[in-house]
Amino acid sequence: MASPHSFGNRLGRVVWGLVWGLLCRHSPRPFFAWRRFWLRLFGAKLARGARVYPKVRIWAPWNLRMGRDSTIGDLVDVYCVAPVTLGDRAAVSQYSYLCAATHDYRSPKLPLVPMPITLEADVWVAADVFVGPGVTIREGTVVGARSSVFTDLPPWSVCVGTPAKAVKARRSDQ
Amino acid sequence: MASPHSFGNRLGRVVWGLVWGLLCRHSPRPFFAWRRFWLRLFGAKLARGARVYPKVRIWAPWNLRMGRDSTIGDLVDVYCVAPVTLGDRAAVSQYSYLCAATHDYRSPKLPLVPMPITLEADVWVAADVFVGPGVTIREGTVVGARSSVFTDLPPWSVCVGTPAKAVKARRSDQ
Amino acid sequence: MASPHSFGNRLGRVVWGLVWGLLCRHSPRPFFAWRRFWLRLFGAKLARGARVYPKVRIWAPWNLRMGRDSTIGDLVDVYCVAPVTLGDRAAVSQYSYLCAATHDYRSPKLPLVPMPITLEADVWVAADVFVGPGVTIREGTVVGARSSVFTDLPPWSVCVGTPAKAVKARRSDQ
Repeated sequence: MASPHSFGNRLGRVVWGLVWGLLCRHSPRPFFAWRRFWLRLFGAKLARGARVYPKVRIWAPWNLRMGRDSTIGDLVDVYCVAPVTLGDRAAVSQYSYLCAATHDYRSPKLPLVPMPITLEADVWVAADVFVGPGVTIREGTVVGARSSVFTDLPPWSVCVGTPAKAVKARRSDQ
Repeated sequence: MASPHSFGNRLGRVVWGLVWGLLCRHSPRPFFAWRRFWLRLFGAKLARGARVYPKVRIWAPWNLRMGRDSTIGDLVDVYCVAPVTLGDRAAVSQYSYLCAATHDYRSPKLPLVPMPITLEADVWVAADVFVGPGVTIREGTVVGARSSVFTDLPPWSVCVGTPAKAVKARRSDQ
Repeated sequence: MASPHSFGNRLGRVVWGLVWGLLCRHSPRPFFAWRRFWLRLFGAKLARGARVYPKVRIWAPWNLRMGRDSTIGDLVDVYCVAPVTLGDRAAVSQYSYLCAATHDYRSPKLPLVPMPITLEADVWVAADVFVGPGVTIREGTVVGARSSVFTDLPPWSVCVGTPAKAVKARRSDQ
Protein backbone atom coordinates (compact mmCIF):
# COMPACT_ATOMS: atom_id res chain seq x y z
CA MET A 1 0.00 0.00 0.00
CA ALA A 2 1.54 3.29 -1.05
CA SER A 3 1.48 6.09 1.51
CA PRO A 4 -1.68 8.20 1.28
CA HIS A 5 0.33 11.26 2.28
CA SER A 6 2.02 13.78 0.02
CA PHE A 7 5.76 13.88 -0.30
CA GLY A 8 5.85 17.21 1.52
CA ASN A 9 3.83 15.80 4.39
CA ARG A 10 6.11 12.81 4.72
CA LEU A 11 9.26 14.89 4.49
CA GLY A 12 7.93 17.30 7.10
CA ARG A 13 7.18 14.44 9.44
CA VAL A 14 10.63 12.93 9.01
CA VAL A 15 12.29 16.22 9.89
CA TRP A 16 9.84 16.75 12.74
CA GLY A 17 10.57 13.28 14.11
CA LEU A 18 14.27 14.01 14.17
CA VAL A 19 13.78 17.40 15.83
CA TRP A 20 11.46 16.10 18.53
CA GLY A 21 13.48 12.93 19.11
CA LEU A 22 16.81 14.68 19.38
CA LEU A 23 15.90 18.00 20.97
CA CYS A 24 12.65 17.61 22.89
CA ARG A 25 11.87 14.04 23.93
CA HIS A 26 14.69 13.99 26.45
CA SER A 27 14.41 17.61 27.49
CA PRO A 28 13.72 18.31 31.18
CA ARG A 29 10.04 18.44 32.05
CA PRO A 30 9.95 22.12 33.02
CA PHE A 31 11.29 23.16 29.57
CA PHE A 32 7.80 23.83 28.25
CA ALA A 33 8.85 27.03 26.50
CA TRP A 34 11.61 25.19 24.65
CA ARG A 35 9.18 22.62 23.30
CA ARG A 36 6.62 25.31 22.43
CA PHE A 37 9.32 26.99 20.36
CA TRP A 38 9.88 23.89 18.23
CA LEU A 39 6.22 23.00 17.98
CA ARG A 40 5.40 26.51 16.74
CA LEU A 41 8.27 26.40 14.27
CA PHE A 42 6.57 23.36 12.75
CA GLY A 43 3.21 25.05 12.57
CA ALA A 44 1.45 24.28 15.85
CA LYS A 45 -0.85 27.06 17.08
CA LEU A 46 -0.11 27.27 20.79
CA ALA A 47 -1.57 29.90 23.10
CA ARG A 48 0.34 31.22 26.07
CA GLY A 49 1.03 28.63 28.74
CA ALA A 50 0.21 25.61 26.59
CA ARG A 51 2.19 22.73 28.02
CA VAL A 52 3.38 19.68 26.12
CA TYR A 53 5.31 17.08 28.10
CA PRO A 54 8.52 15.64 26.64
CA LYS A 55 7.35 12.11 25.90
CA VAL A 56 4.29 13.15 23.94
CA ARG A 57 4.07 11.83 20.37
CA ILE A 58 2.70 14.33 17.86
CA TRP A 59 2.15 13.07 14.34
CA ALA A 60 2.02 16.43 12.56
CA PRO A 61 2.42 19.57 14.70
CA TRP A 62 0.90 21.74 11.97
CA ASN A 63 -2.43 20.07 12.78
CA LEU A 64 -2.29 20.85 16.51
CA ARG A 65 -3.96 23.84 18.16
CA MET A 66 -3.86 24.37 21.93
CA GLY A 67 -5.60 27.04 24.02
CA ARG A 68 -4.25 28.93 27.02
CA ASP A 69 -2.85 26.83 29.86
CA SER A 70 -3.92 23.63 28.18
CA THR A 71 -1.82 20.53 28.82
CA ILE A 72 -0.84 17.34 27.03
CA GLY A 73 0.66 14.91 29.54
CA ASP A 74 3.50 12.45 29.13
CA LEU A 75 3.16 9.51 26.78
CA VAL A 76 0.03 10.88 25.18
CA ASP A 77 -0.18 10.10 21.47
CA VAL A 78 -1.69 12.83 19.31
CA TYR A 79 -2.32 11.15 15.97
CA CYS A 80 -3.29 14.40 14.29
CA VAL A 81 -3.74 13.29 10.70
CA ALA A 82 -6.68 15.68 10.88
CA PRO A 83 -6.72 18.80 13.10
CA VAL A 84 -6.70 18.26 16.87
CA THR A 85 -7.82 21.23 18.96
CA LEU A 86 -7.66 21.74 22.73
CA GLY A 87 -9.54 24.66 24.29
CA ASP A 88 -8.28 26.84 27.11
CA ARG A 89 -7.27 24.87 30.20
CA ALA A 90 -8.12 21.55 28.56
CA ALA A 91 -5.92 18.74 29.89
CA VAL A 92 -5.06 15.28 28.61
CA SER A 93 -3.45 12.87 31.07
CA GLN A 94 -0.72 10.31 30.47
CA TYR A 95 -1.15 7.42 28.02
CA SER A 96 -4.24 8.82 26.38
CA TYR A 97 -4.54 8.53 22.64
CA LEU A 98 -6.19 11.13 20.43
CA CYS A 99 -6.73 9.17 17.23
CA ALA A 100 -7.85 11.55 14.46
CA ALA A 101 -8.12 9.04 11.63
CA THR A 102 -9.72 5.76 10.79
CA HIS A 103 -9.72 3.46 7.77
CA ASP A 104 -12.69 2.80 5.52
CA TYR A 105 -13.07 -0.95 5.94
CA ARG A 106 -15.72 -1.13 3.25
CA SER A 107 -12.93 -0.71 0.74
CA PRO A 108 -10.47 -3.60 0.43
CA LYS A 109 -7.57 -1.15 0.43
CA LEU A 110 -8.56 0.33 3.81
CA PRO A 111 -8.08 3.95 2.70
CA LEU A 112 -7.19 6.39 5.47
CA VAL A 113 -10.02 8.70 6.61
CA PRO A 114 -8.82 11.69 8.68
CA MET A 115 -11.43 13.17 11.05
CA PRO A 116 -10.74 16.07 13.45
CA ILE A 117 -10.91 15.92 17.26
CA THR A 118 -11.93 18.83 19.47
CA LEU A 119 -11.67 19.10 23.23
CA GLU A 120 -13.35 22.32 24.30
CA ALA A 121 -12.32 24.56 27.17
CA ASP A 122 -11.89 23.01 30.63
CA VAL A 123 -12.19 19.45 29.42
CA TRP A 124 -10.14 16.93 31.33
CA VAL A 125 -9.36 13.62 29.66
CA ALA A 126 -7.90 11.36 32.38
CA ALA A 127 -5.26 8.65 31.97
CA ASP A 128 -5.26 6.07 29.19
CA VAL A 129 -8.38 7.29 27.45
CA PHE A 130 -8.97 6.66 23.76
CA VAL A 131 -10.60 9.51 21.84
CA GLY A 132 -11.68 8.37 18.40
CA PRO A 133 -11.81 10.15 15.05
CA GLY A 134 -14.37 12.91 14.64
CA VAL A 135 -15.15 13.29 18.33
CA THR A 136 -15.97 16.59 20.02
CA ILE A 137 -15.95 16.74 23.81
CA ARG A 138 -17.91 19.74 24.94
CA GLU A 139 -16.81 22.34 27.45
CA GLY A 140 -15.97 21.37 31.01
CA THR A 141 -16.49 17.63 30.69
CA VAL A 142 -14.34 15.08 32.50
CA VAL A 143 -13.65 11.67 30.94
CA GLY A 144 -12.67 9.01 33.49
CA ALA A 145 -9.47 6.98 33.23
CA ARG A 146 -9.43 4.12 30.70
CA SER A 147 -12.61 5.20 28.96
CA SER A 148 -12.98 5.04 25.18
CA VAL A 149 -14.79 7.90 23.47
CA PHE A 150 -16.40 7.12 20.12
CA THR A 151 -19.14 9.74 20.04
CA ASP A 152 -19.49 13.40 21.02
CA LEU A 153 -19.87 14.08 24.74
CA PRO A 154 -22.08 16.78 26.31
CA PRO A 155 -20.73 19.73 28.34
CA TRP A 156 -20.03 19.81 32.09
CA SER A 157 -20.50 16.08 32.58
CA VAL A 158 -18.52 13.25 34.07
CA CYS A 159 -18.29 10.52 31.45
CA VAL A 160 -16.89 7.02 31.84
CA GLY A 161 -16.81 3.64 30.18
CA THR A 162 -16.59 2.12 26.72
CA PRO A 163 -18.22 3.71 24.87
CA ALA A 164 -17.96 6.67 27.26
CA LYS A 165 -21.29 8.01 28.50
CA ALA A 166 -22.29 10.78 30.87
CA VAL A 167 -22.97 9.41 34.36
CA LYS A 168 -23.39 12.64 36.26
CA ALA A 169 -23.02 16.38 36.06
CA ARG A 170 -19.74 18.05 36.87
CA ARG A 171 -20.06 21.10 39.01
CA SER A 172 -17.02 23.10 39.94
CA ASP A 173 -18.71 24.46 43.06
CA GLN A 174 -19.69 21.04 44.36
CA MET B 1 10.96 -18.20 39.54
CA ALA B 2 13.43 -19.64 37.04
CA SER B 3 12.83 -18.86 33.37
CA PRO B 4 10.56 -21.41 31.71
CA HIS B 5 12.50 -20.94 28.46
CA SER B 6 15.47 -22.95 27.22
CA PHE B 7 18.92 -21.45 27.19
CA GLY B 8 18.87 -21.39 23.40
CA ASN B 9 15.57 -19.53 23.38
CA ARG B 10 16.85 -16.96 25.84
CA LEU B 11 20.14 -16.50 24.03
CA GLY B 12 18.32 -16.12 20.72
CA ARG B 13 16.07 -13.45 22.19
CA VAL B 14 18.99 -11.53 23.65
CA VAL B 15 20.73 -11.44 20.27
CA TRP B 16 17.45 -10.60 18.54
CA GLY B 17 16.81 -7.76 20.98
CA LEU B 18 20.19 -6.27 20.19
CA VAL B 19 19.73 -6.62 16.45
CA TRP B 20 16.28 -5.09 16.42
CA GLY B 21 17.16 -2.35 18.91
CA LEU B 22 20.33 -1.30 17.14
CA LEU B 23 19.51 -1.89 13.47
CA CYS B 24 15.74 -1.77 13.02
CA ARG B 25 13.91 0.16 15.72
CA HIS B 26 15.28 3.46 14.53
CA SER B 27 15.32 2.63 10.83
CA PRO B 28 13.26 4.89 8.53
CA ARG B 29 9.66 3.77 8.11
CA PRO B 30 9.91 2.91 4.40
CA PHE B 31 12.78 0.44 5.05
CA PHE B 32 10.41 -2.52 5.13
CA ALA B 33 12.73 -4.71 3.09
CA TRP B 34 15.58 -4.07 5.50
CA ARG B 35 13.51 -5.18 8.47
CA ARG B 36 12.17 -8.21 6.56
CA PHE B 37 15.77 -9.22 5.96
CA TRP B 38 16.56 -9.31 9.67
CA LEU B 39 13.27 -10.90 10.68
CA ARG B 40 13.78 -13.69 8.15
CA LEU B 41 17.34 -14.19 9.31
CA PHE B 42 15.89 -14.90 12.76
CA GLY B 43 13.35 -17.35 11.43
CA ALA B 44 10.24 -15.31 10.64
CA LYS B 45 8.25 -16.61 7.66
CA LEU B 46 7.35 -13.47 5.74
CA ALA B 47 5.60 -13.47 2.38
CA ARG B 48 6.27 -10.82 -0.22
CA GLY B 49 5.21 -7.35 0.82
CA ALA B 50 4.80 -8.15 4.52
CA ARG B 51 5.36 -4.89 6.37
CA VAL B 52 6.62 -4.52 9.92
CA TYR B 53 6.94 -0.99 11.25
CA PRO B 54 10.09 0.02 13.11
CA LYS B 55 8.70 0.36 16.64
CA VAL B 56 7.06 -3.06 16.70
CA ARG B 57 8.12 -5.37 19.53
CA ILE B 58 8.49 -9.00 18.51
CA TRP B 59 9.26 -11.47 21.26
CA ALA B 60 10.59 -14.31 19.10
CA PRO B 61 10.66 -13.79 15.32
CA TRP B 62 10.92 -17.53 14.69
CA ASN B 63 7.30 -17.77 15.90
CA LEU B 64 5.98 -15.14 13.47
CA ARG B 65 4.40 -15.91 10.10
CA MET B 66 2.96 -13.17 7.87
CA GLY B 67 1.07 -13.48 4.56
CA ARG B 68 1.35 -11.31 1.47
CA ASP B 69 0.94 -7.56 1.99
CA SER B 70 0.09 -8.04 5.64
CA THR B 71 1.03 -5.25 8.04
CA ILE B 72 2.03 -4.84 11.67
CA GLY B 73 1.79 -1.17 12.63
CA ASP B 74 3.97 0.88 14.93
CA LEU B 75 4.10 0.14 18.63
CA VAL B 76 2.31 -3.15 18.23
CA ASP B 77 3.57 -5.81 20.65
CA VAL B 78 3.70 -9.33 19.26
CA TYR B 79 4.24 -11.53 22.31
CA CYS B 80 4.76 -14.66 20.23
CA VAL B 81 5.70 -17.19 22.88
CA ALA B 82 3.49 -19.44 20.75
CA PRO B 83 3.12 -19.04 16.96
CA VAL B 84 1.42 -15.87 15.70
CA THR B 85 0.13 -16.03 12.12
CA LEU B 86 -1.24 -13.26 9.91
CA GLY B 87 -2.98 -14.15 6.66
CA ASP B 88 -2.65 -12.28 3.38
CA ARG B 89 -3.49 -8.58 3.68
CA ALA B 90 -4.18 -8.87 7.42
CA ALA B 91 -3.38 -5.62 9.24
CA VAL B 92 -2.77 -4.76 12.87
CA SER B 93 -2.88 -1.08 13.83
CA GLN B 94 -0.74 0.81 16.29
CA TYR B 95 -0.64 -0.06 20.01
CA SER B 96 -2.38 -3.39 19.62
CA TYR B 97 -1.10 -6.32 21.61
CA LEU B 98 -1.09 -9.90 20.36
CA CYS B 99 -0.57 -11.83 23.59
CA ALA B 100 0.10 -15.48 22.79
CA ALA B 101 0.58 -16.76 26.32
CA THR B 102 -1.13 -16.80 29.67
CA HIS B 103 -0.29 -18.18 33.12
CA ASP B 104 -2.06 -21.04 34.80
CA TYR B 105 -3.29 -19.34 37.95
CA ARG B 106 -4.52 -22.61 39.43
CA SER B 107 -0.89 -23.40 40.13
CA PRO B 108 0.83 -21.28 42.79
CA LYS B 109 3.88 -20.93 40.53
CA LEU B 110 1.83 -19.41 37.69
CA PRO B 111 3.44 -21.53 34.96
CA LEU B 112 3.51 -19.98 31.50
CA VAL B 113 0.99 -21.41 29.00
CA PRO B 114 1.76 -20.49 25.36
CA MET B 115 -1.26 -20.49 23.01
CA PRO B 116 -1.11 -19.53 19.32
CA ILE B 117 -2.92 -16.60 17.69
CA THR B 118 -4.19 -16.58 14.12
CA LEU B 119 -5.52 -13.64 12.13
CA GLU B 120 -6.81 -14.96 8.83
CA ALA B 121 -6.70 -13.18 5.47
CA ASP B 122 -8.12 -9.66 5.23
CA VAL B 123 -8.56 -9.24 8.98
CA TRP B 124 -8.07 -5.74 10.28
CA VAL B 125 -7.33 -5.27 13.97
CA ALA B 126 -7.67 -1.54 14.67
CA ALA B 127 -5.71 0.54 17.19
CA ASP B 128 -5.04 -0.53 20.78
CA VAL B 129 -6.80 -3.87 20.58
CA PHE B 130 -5.85 -6.76 22.86
CA VAL B 131 -5.90 -10.21 21.26
CA GLY B 132 -5.63 -12.91 23.89
CA PRO B 133 -3.92 -16.32 23.86
CA GLY B 134 -5.44 -19.01 21.68
CA VAL B 135 -7.64 -16.65 19.64
CA THR B 136 -8.42 -17.13 15.95
CA ILE B 137 -10.00 -14.25 14.06
CA ARG B 138 -11.62 -15.56 10.92
CA GLU B 139 -11.20 -14.17 7.44
CA GLY B 140 -12.19 -10.62 6.63
CA THR B 141 -13.25 -9.55 10.10
CA VAL B 142 -12.66 -6.06 11.48
CA VAL B 143 -12.04 -5.50 15.21
CA GLY B 144 -12.81 -1.95 16.36
CA ALA B 145 -10.29 0.21 18.19
CA ARG B 146 -9.76 -0.52 21.90
CA SER B 147 -11.60 -3.83 21.83
CA SER B 148 -10.32 -6.87 23.73
CA VAL B 149 -10.61 -10.25 22.04
CA PHE B 150 -10.74 -13.29 24.33
CA THR B 151 -12.61 -15.75 22.08
CA ASP B 152 -12.60 -16.68 18.40
CA LEU B 153 -14.38 -14.27 16.08
CA PRO B 154 -16.46 -15.22 13.03
CA PRO B 155 -15.57 -14.25 9.43
CA TRP B 156 -16.55 -11.04 7.60
CA SER B 157 -17.92 -9.33 10.71
CA VAL B 158 -17.37 -6.06 12.47
CA CYS B 159 -16.59 -6.83 16.11
CA VAL B 160 -16.22 -4.39 18.99
CA GLY B 161 -16.13 -4.22 22.76
CA THR B 162 -14.74 -6.17 25.69
CA PRO B 163 -15.07 -9.04 25.17
CA ALA B 164 -15.28 -8.32 21.45
CA LYS B 165 -18.48 -9.48 19.77
CA ALA B 166 -19.83 -9.28 16.22
CA VAL B 167 -22.19 -6.33 15.85
CA LYS B 168 -22.73 -6.41 12.10
CA ALA B 169 -21.58 -7.94 8.86
CA ARG B 170 -18.68 -6.47 6.95
CA ARG B 171 -19.28 -6.22 3.25
CA SER B 172 -16.60 -4.87 0.99
CA ASP B 173 -19.19 -3.86 -1.61
CA GLN B 174 -21.27 -1.85 0.85
CA MET C 1 -0.04 25.29 37.10
CA ALA C 2 2.92 25.13 39.46
CA SER C 3 4.12 21.68 40.48
CA PRO C 4 2.34 20.38 43.59
CA HIS C 5 5.53 18.59 44.64
CA SER C 6 8.27 19.87 46.91
CA PHE C 7 11.64 20.86 45.51
CA GLY C 8 13.23 17.86 47.20
CA ASN C 9 10.71 15.50 45.64
CA ARG C 10 11.29 16.94 42.20
CA LEU C 11 15.07 16.90 42.56
CA GLY C 12 14.94 13.33 43.79
CA ARG C 13 12.88 12.28 40.81
CA VAL C 14 15.20 13.99 38.36
CA VAL C 15 18.21 12.15 39.80
CA TRP C 16 16.23 8.92 39.95
CA GLY C 17 15.18 9.31 36.31
CA LEU C 18 18.80 9.69 35.26
CA VAL C 19 19.93 6.70 37.33
CA TRP C 20 17.20 4.40 36.07
CA GLY C 21 17.46 5.60 32.48
CA LEU C 22 21.24 5.30 32.27
CA LEU C 23 21.97 2.31 34.52
CA CYS C 24 18.87 0.14 34.71
CA ARG C 25 16.46 0.56 31.79
CA HIS C 26 18.85 -1.11 29.38
CA SER C 27 20.31 -3.61 31.83
CA PRO C 28 19.93 -7.31 30.96
CA ARG C 29 16.72 -8.86 32.23
CA PRO C 30 18.36 -11.25 34.70
CA PHE C 31 20.12 -8.38 36.51
CA PHE C 32 17.39 -8.17 39.15
CA ALA C 33 19.89 -7.76 42.00
CA TRP C 34 21.48 -4.82 40.23
CA ARG C 35 18.15 -3.03 39.89
CA ARG C 36 17.19 -3.87 43.49
CA PHE C 37 20.41 -2.22 44.59
CA TRP C 38 19.50 1.08 42.92
CA LEU C 39 15.87 0.95 43.93
CA ARG C 40 16.83 0.42 47.55
CA LEU C 41 19.37 3.22 47.39
CA PHE C 42 16.48 5.50 46.46
CA GLY C 43 14.32 4.28 49.31
CA ALA C 44 12.33 1.33 47.95
CA LYS C 45 11.57 -1.36 50.53
CA LEU C 46 12.23 -4.60 48.66
CA ALA C 47 12.15 -8.03 50.25
CA ARG C 48 14.38 -10.83 49.07
CA GLY C 49 13.69 -11.98 45.55
CA ALA C 50 11.59 -8.97 44.56
CA ARG C 51 11.95 -8.64 40.80
CA VAL C 52 11.60 -5.44 38.81
CA TYR C 53 12.02 -5.74 35.03
CA PRO C 54 14.19 -3.21 33.21
CA LYS C 55 11.52 -1.28 31.31
CA VAL C 56 9.36 -0.59 34.36
CA ARG C 57 8.64 3.08 35.07
CA ILE C 58 8.66 3.98 38.76
CA TRP C 59 7.67 7.50 39.64
CA ALA C 60 9.20 7.66 43.13
CA PRO C 61 10.98 4.54 44.40
CA TRP C 62 10.72 5.74 48.00
CA ASN C 63 6.99 5.06 47.76
CA LEU C 64 7.39 1.46 46.59
CA ARG C 65 7.29 -1.59 48.87
CA MET C 66 7.52 -5.14 47.51
CA GLY C 67 7.21 -8.48 49.35
CA ARG C 68 9.23 -11.64 48.84
CA ASP C 69 9.39 -12.99 45.30
CA SER C 70 6.97 -10.37 44.04
CA THR C 71 7.34 -9.23 40.45
CA ILE C 72 6.74 -6.11 38.38
CA GLY C 73 6.85 -7.01 34.68
CA ASP C 74 8.20 -5.07 31.75
CA LEU C 75 6.57 -1.82 30.70
CA VAL C 76 4.49 -1.60 33.85
CA ASP C 77 4.04 1.97 35.04
CA VAL C 78 4.05 2.44 38.80
CA TYR C 79 2.79 5.97 39.32
CA CYS C 80 3.51 5.91 43.04
CA VAL C 81 2.69 9.46 44.03
CA ALA C 82 1.21 7.71 47.08
CA PRO C 83 2.61 4.43 48.49
CA VAL C 84 2.26 1.33 46.31
CA THR C 85 2.62 -1.99 48.13
CA LEU C 86 2.93 -5.52 46.72
CA GLY C 87 2.61 -8.48 49.07
CA ASP C 88 4.67 -11.66 48.92
CA ARG C 89 4.54 -13.37 45.53
CA ALA C 90 2.28 -10.68 44.06
CA ALA C 91 2.86 -10.24 40.33
CA VAL C 92 2.01 -7.49 37.87
CA SER C 93 2.23 -8.35 34.16
CA GLN C 94 3.43 -6.21 31.28
CA TYR C 95 1.76 -2.91 30.35
CA SER C 96 -0.27 -2.66 33.53
CA TYR C 97 -0.58 0.72 35.16
CA LEU C 98 -0.75 1.25 38.92
CA CYS C 99 -2.06 4.81 39.11
CA ALA C 100 -1.85 6.04 42.71
CA ALA C 101 -3.20 9.54 42.19
CA THR C 102 -6.14 11.36 40.72
CA HIS C 103 -7.15 14.99 40.35
CA ASP C 104 -10.01 16.66 42.14
CA TYR C 105 -12.12 17.79 39.21
CA ARG C 106 -14.48 19.72 41.46
CA SER C 107 -11.76 22.32 41.73
CA PRO C 108 -10.96 24.31 38.59
CA LYS C 109 -7.23 23.84 39.23
CA LEU C 110 -7.51 20.04 39.25
CA PRO C 111 -5.34 19.59 42.35
CA LEU C 112 -3.48 16.29 42.60
CA VAL C 113 -4.91 13.76 45.08
CA PRO C 114 -2.50 10.90 45.92
CA MET C 115 -4.15 7.66 47.08
CA PRO C 116 -2.24 4.46 47.93
CA ILE C 117 -2.55 1.12 46.12
CA THR C 118 -2.14 -2.26 47.80
CA LEU C 119 -1.86 -5.65 46.14
CA GLU C 120 -1.86 -8.26 48.89
CA ALA C 121 0.05 -11.56 48.83
CA ASP C 122 -0.40 -13.90 45.86
CA VAL C 123 -2.31 -11.37 43.79
CA TRP C 124 -1.76 -11.61 40.06
CA VAL C 125 -2.58 -8.59 37.92
CA ALA C 126 -2.43 -9.76 34.29
CA ALA C 127 -1.38 -7.75 31.24
CA ASP C 128 -2.53 -4.21 30.52
CA VAL C 129 -4.67 -3.80 33.62
CA PHE C 130 -5.39 -0.38 35.08
CA VAL C 131 -5.43 -0.19 38.89
CA GLY C 132 -6.84 3.11 40.07
CA PRO C 133 -6.03 5.31 43.06
CA GLY C 134 -6.98 4.03 46.50
CA VAL C 135 -7.56 0.44 45.41
CA THR C 136 -6.76 -2.61 47.55
CA ILE C 137 -6.77 -6.02 45.89
CA ARG C 138 -7.11 -8.67 48.56
CA GLU C 139 -4.96 -11.77 48.93
CA GLY C 140 -4.76 -14.34 46.16
CA THR C 141 -6.99 -12.59 43.65
CA VAL C 142 -6.36 -12.70 39.89
CA VAL C 143 -7.32 -9.77 37.67
CA GLY C 144 -7.78 -10.71 34.00
CA ALA C 145 -5.91 -9.00 31.18
CA ARG C 146 -7.18 -5.56 30.10
CA SER C 147 -9.43 -5.10 33.11
CA SER C 148 -9.73 -1.77 34.90
CA VAL C 149 -9.92 -1.79 38.69
CA PHE C 150 -11.63 1.19 40.32
CA THR C 151 -12.80 -0.39 43.58
CA ASP C 152 -11.41 -2.86 46.13
CA LEU C 153 -11.49 -6.52 45.10
CA PRO C 154 -12.23 -9.48 47.41
CA PRO C 155 -9.68 -12.25 48.20
CA TRP C 156 -9.12 -15.45 46.21
CA SER C 157 -11.32 -14.42 43.29
CA VAL C 158 -10.94 -14.17 39.56
CA CYS C 159 -11.97 -10.66 38.55
CA VAL C 160 -12.40 -9.28 35.05
CA GLY C 161 -13.89 -6.36 33.17
CA THR C 162 -14.31 -2.63 33.48
CA PRO C 163 -14.96 -1.98 36.28
CA ALA C 164 -13.40 -5.28 37.36
CA LYS C 165 -15.72 -7.60 39.26
CA ALA C 166 -15.35 -11.06 40.75
CA VAL C 167 -16.68 -13.72 38.37
CA LYS C 168 -15.58 -16.85 40.19
CA ALA C 169 -13.46 -18.16 43.01
CA ARG C 170 -9.81 -18.90 42.52
CA ARG C 171 -8.71 -22.15 44.01
CA SER C 172 -5.10 -23.19 43.79
CA ASP C 173 -6.07 -26.86 44.19
CA GLN C 174 -8.58 -26.76 41.35
